[in-house]
Amino acid sequence: MSTEAESPEPVEKTEENHLPDTKEMRSVVLTSVGGLNKMRVMKRPEPAPQEGEVMIRVKACGLNFYDLMVRQGAVDNPPKTPIVLGFECSGVIEAVGGSVTDFQVGSNVIAITNYGAWSELVTVPTKFCFHMPDGMSFEDAAALPISYTTAHILLYELGNLKKGKSVLVHSAGGAVGSAVAQLSKQLENVTLFGTASAHKHEALKENWQHLFDREVQDYHQEVKKISPEGVDIVLDCLCGEDTNKGYSLLKPMGKYILFGSSNVVTGETRSFFSFAKAWWQVDKINPIKLYDENKTVSGFMLQNLIFSQGRFDVLQDVMAELIGLYKAGKIKPVIDSVFAFEEIGTAMQKLHDRQNIGKVLISPLKEPQPKEEKSAESATPPSPNSGDTENESKEEQK
Amino acid sequence: MSTEAESPEPVEKTEENHLPDTKEMRSVVLTSVGGLNKMRVMKRPEPAPQEGEVMIRVKACGLNFYDLMVRQGAVDNPPKTPIVLGFECSGVIEAVGGSVTDFQVGSNVIAITNYGAWSELVTVPTKFCFHMPDGMSFEDAAALPISYTTAHILLYELGNLKKGKSVLVHSAGGAVGSAVAQLSKQLENVTLFGTASAHKHEALKENWQHLFDREVQDYHQEVKKISPEGVDIVLDCLCGEDTNKGYSLLKPMGKYILFGSSNVVTGETRSFFSFAKAWWQVDKINPIKLYDENKTVSGFMLQNLIFSQGRFDVLQDVMAELIGLYKAGKIKPVIDSVFAFEEIGTAMQKLHDRQNIGKVLISPLKEPQPKEEKSAESATPPSPNSGDTENESKEEQK
Repeated sequence: MSTEAESPEPVEKTEENHLPDTKEMRSVVLTSVGGLNKMRVMKRPEPAPQEGEVMIRVKACGLNFYDLMVRQGAVDNPPKTPIVLGFECSGVIEAVGGSVTDFQVGSNVIAITNYGAWSELVTVPTKFCFHMPDGMSFEDAAALPISYTTAHILLYELGNLKKGKSVLVHSAGGAVGSAVAQLSKQLENVTLFGTASAHKHEALKENWQHLFDREVQDYHQEVKKISPEGVDIVLDCLCGEDTNKGYSLLKPMGKYILFGSSNVVTGETRSFFSFAKAWWQVDKINPIKLYDENKTVSGFMLQNLIFSQGRFDVLQDVMAELIGLYKAGKIKPVIDSVFAFEEIGTAMQKLHDRQNIGKVLISPLKEPQPKEEKSAESATPPSPNSGDTENESKEEQK
Repeated sequence: MSTEAESPEPVEKTEENHLPDTKEMRSVVLTSVGGLNKMRVMKRPEPAPQEGEVMIRVKACGLNFYDLMVRQGAVDNPPKTPIVLGFECSGVIEAVGGSVTDFQVGSNVIAITNYGAWSELVTVPTKFCFHMPDGMSFEDAAALPISYTTAHILLYELGNLKKGKSVLVHSAGGAVGSAVAQLSKQLENVTLFGTASAHKHEALKENWQHLFDREVQDYHQEVKKISPEGVDIVLDCLCGEDTNKGYSLLKPMGKYILFGSSNVVTGETRSFFSFAKAWWQVDKINPIKLYDENKTVSGFMLQNLIFSQGRFDVLQDVMAELIGLYKAGKIKPVIDSVFAFEEIGTAMQKLHDRQNIGKVLISPLKEPQPKEEKSAESATPPSPNSGDTENESKEEQK
């Protein structure tokens, strides 16, 4: 099933591409809102850096749940398609625009982008670029910005984590979960509770004291058994009924932090039902209740913060700290897999089904694996929710 | 008017006080839920320290808004009356119970109590006692625990205050407001916005960059004029419509913290109307909205935390830090006034009308001032909301 999501067609050309002299590059394009079959690798004209921008020859790109939400149209003000997805990448600066003094051609950089990272070349304002430290791989560099910035802000800015505290994290095996595990080690004696599929527990148990499989265990009850008074911080990327459960697991002075709504993305295409369900399942909170109970509720969404709300100052402070921690050997991204641009469907499906442990990357340098091999390799069962009528009908037509 | 709130009767004796050998002490007693006339100074039998307790000869006691709320019955599970009010005091240890090793007779201590502080003698479990540093006055000691602990937790544990941030505080002139102003100076370049009656602005302007009188200014608009993007932290002790205003003044990543509900206490006796109004005026918040907006909402209520929720560990950590800051000369409570036990009505009315700048204390050592003098002194106009039918009818009977 997942291999059907690939783009088996040869690289397509966009309409713009009619001038014979225009240099072209490959990009991973969302052609319209929908399922995996809306993802295409296309040739597009090369960009040029504008004033204050650098142009990066991309080596690796991060894949985030937010990309899946955009594909499904499950974000506010979804962008006009066709659009290149991708919010982070690493690479080498190939050109600089006017007024750029702090970056040179040839420098290795990490970049956060407001869409558009999944291309061979991207142009980025320098305020969203960061020098890669010596010895950092392009894969580590592409895996760092969104997941680690998110984890750091959740733990230290919003959670105000201190030694001896406890944290419950959903999707402990995901990229943010891995970052949380590493970043919480900056402090002594932090207890980590996580939810993850049972098959990941072996790989995770070194960093997580308590792991639960939500499919077969009532994690709410399990946490209460281990820590009857609850936990200090809940990091919830699921939303919906888990939000109410998370709140009820908080100790007094506890902080519940919603940083994603992946329960909204169930199945391959946007479901108004799962939207509405999440919205209504979440209990509205009266601040007076928080006052009586000594509790805190936070929301965090990095893309909104830096691109809609203009708070890239927050990003810059945290990135500086993260790069310092990387250089000191205190953090090291866990890379689950690196896919070719042409394998974007498999990559997205893997993230959707939460089969990854750590970060899923795509890279323009990577060659897609031959299909036979992949099918044989694919231990990943298709998600029961991923039925995609459009793909299926396409299959029939073939 | 305010002098009418005094207890002009001679000290009353309680029923228990029938054994001729029982030693007696004076206490400030709430005889039943209601107005100022429910406060009485009464003789009660001296207590004896139990296992793990010390008995303190009280020198000074703090008055908090929470005392007013209890008097009005505006707290959850109001205690059975008659009861001695008061949640903090300072004094000298006069006796110790069994198993007490860390406190000796003769030591000066600060104590937080679960009711009962307004007496000549109080017994307190040692976990709620703290050694007074050398050179600290009993007045400073009584003014420190609740207001400074609250302010410290609001700023540093919940607000996660950092240099360069901005804070809006309601009742800037109150005891918590004064503590916030001093504690925020531990960091560089914190901008303080406060609301306070115009007549206090002169006294406060040294510590507060921006002051607004809520009676004559729309502080919401004024803050927006000065800082269009809003503020980083809002500390709200009012509740009701100010809660919605406070939330809307938050920057992205901003933290709104409700730590009181003094709007509920308008007038001298409990008003179900002001309760209901506060509850319904406060917008319920969907965590998904916080996620979209990158905002945090917290509630904090010290008494619930330490007495109902058993988190005195939080109190102990913060008190240790505060005592360190006091010793280093970094903080110094602002004492508004010290009243005699018999003047509890005037003291409560002053707090209710927010005529104080800094902490209002009462002391068993203080003699009530002669009535004439006080009336002449009293520049404080009676609150328009403080009409107390019971007092008035009592007056008629006299």
